[in-house]
Amino acid sequence: MSVPRDPQALAEACAAAMWADDTASQGLGMTLDAVGPGTATLSMPVTEAMTNGHGICHGGFIFALADSAFAFACNGYNQRTVGQHAAITYLAPARAGDTLRAEATELDRRARSGIYDITVRTDAGAVIAQFRGHSRTIKGTHLPEPD
Amino acid sequence: MSVPRDPQALAEACAAAMWADDTASQGLGMTLDAVGPGTATLSMPVTEAMTNGHGICHGGFIFALADSAFAFACNGYNQRTVGQHAAITYLAPARAGDTLRAEATELDRRARSGIYDITVRTDAGAVIAQFRGHSRTIKGTHLPEPD
Amino acid sequence: MSVPRDPQALAEACAAAMWADDTASQGLGMTLDAVGPGTATLSMPVTEAMTNGHGICHGGFIFALADSAFAFACNGYNQRTVGQHAAITYLAPARAGDTLRAEATELDRRARSGIYDITVRTDAGAVIAQFRGHSRTIKGTHLPEPD
Amino acid sequence: MSVPRDPQALAEACAAAMWADDTASQGLGMTLDAVGPGTATLSMPVTEAMTNGHGICHGGFIFALADSAFAFACNGYNQRTVGQHAAITYLAPARAGDTLRAEATELDRRARSGIYDITVRTDAGAVIAQFRGHSRTIKGTHLPEPD
Repeated sequence: MSVPRDPQALAEACAAAMWADDTASQGLGMTLDAVGPGTATLSMPVTEAMTNGHGICHGGFIFALADSAFAFACNGYNQRTVGQHAAITYLAPARAGDTLRAEATELDRRARSGIYDITVRTDAGAVIAQFRGHSRTIKGTHLPEPD
Repeated sequence: MSVPRDPQALAEACAAAMWADDTASQGLGMTLDAVGPGTATLSMPVTEAMTNGHGICHGGFIFALADSAFAFACNGYNQRTVGQHAAITYLAPARAGDTLRAEATELDRRARSGIYDITVRTDAGAVIAQFRGHSRTIKGTHLPEPD
Repeated sequence: MSVPRDPQALAEACAAAMWADDTASQGLGMTLDAVGPGTATLSMPVTEAMTNGHGICHGGFIFALADSAFAFACNGYNQRTVGQHAAITYLAPARAGDTLRAEATELDRRARSGIYDITVRTDAGAVIAQFRGHSRTIKGTHLPEPD
Repeated sequence: MSVPRDPQALAEACAAAMWADDTASQGLGMTLDAVGPGTATLSMPVTEAMTNGHGICHGGFIFALADSAFAFACNGYNQRTVGQHAAITYLAPARAGDTLRAEATELDRRARSGIYDITVRTDAGAVIAQFRGHSRTIKGTHLPEPD
């Protein structure tokens, strides 16, 4: 398999390679709806198993969805990239039965660092959380580099 | 059941009430190791199901553990309290087989707002992540208030 | 003087009232270039007096410019509003002789809370810093409310 | 001049070298009260010139003081180190006439990255702000390295 030159095809190929091994995101019931260079959209249904002692979705699952969108958005350049720092603001509760959608966009990318903004919404369109993630590239690629 | 006057007993009673309903933390395999006024320690084994496309623990699960420690630390005053904003810095990867422990301490609490710092370590003592959470009290109590 | 009903006129009137008392922003050489409902643009020349021990603009002044843009953006609804929490990422150094421009936009506003994103650029258009501020309304107005 | 081997003496020598060029911190009226490996305490009187349109100290000056404490704390190892990301939570207003003191401590330091926590208090001991800064070393030293 050759590494695509087209940025959109490259982002999709990287996402496919990552997704195959992403037991965590798959196990949480996420779907990878769309991906592009610096962008990604993932969805996740909130289940009863995700509710906490306040009877609402545990913030960790909302964060996990946003974090996965962040990961797919920043890994589309065939350069392994990890989260360094992330901040989330919770704006409204999510409840069992909601399907959440996280959309990630790239705010900045230079040298080995990137900044990504992720908005998490319910299927009704209500904004649940805002997330800003800082990434850093590490060694390695998702697809084998040509010799 | 009466509401304990002693701060430590109150924190433990609030935690017990919250924990009973915290399907999310229980489902992730967390244990509530210790709790006090403004403090909490929780542990969680990292399973294969928590690994992501980089072969390491998905950041969302590390965050979820820290977030639960944050929640138990800020809810020990019998006043329902939710996370508003949280930031996490990832310092080292966690792997399947590690047991992570999150310790939360209270940095500030005034009026309806609080700040909590959480350190996440492996069982070998290596620091995996630093988390700072901002809380806000909402209406309601964990234990019935006396008339 | 009556309180304008038009959102743009209201934002401008609030900004004029705030600016008159804003000794700090004026003293730092800032200019208020534009303001609207949830938006503000301010500029500031970097002087030699603003340089630090690395020979570049002290981060505090870059932050101050972004913070002022944040303040004017969130105070345009004739409701006194203060910063609660802010985070800045430094992307490139600024130097004496640069004129920095901070543009603030509103990401979210509900009940008493708001989130604002501010980008700081040099006059050459290079992005120097990204800032995200969280605001909260307090008691009081900038313009006298009608009886 | 030789580079001190003792960590405390090294931190003091680095601070002295940085302070001499730190026009910004000096111009804001700061004093460098104490410094050590990973720690620094700086003070700054709040002047009328630092007040904003709310009649209180502009957040930018509180941030600048914390940021300077952060800078001196992370630069004491004779390795040039810059701020990458910082977050501040404002807890109470500061007023003209207050003298603020910022104390920085090191939370983590590994490879090229560090995390520092800074608490800003009034002379009466009231906590005004909590700041967490993330640093990164760059090329260069404060004191000439031995051949």
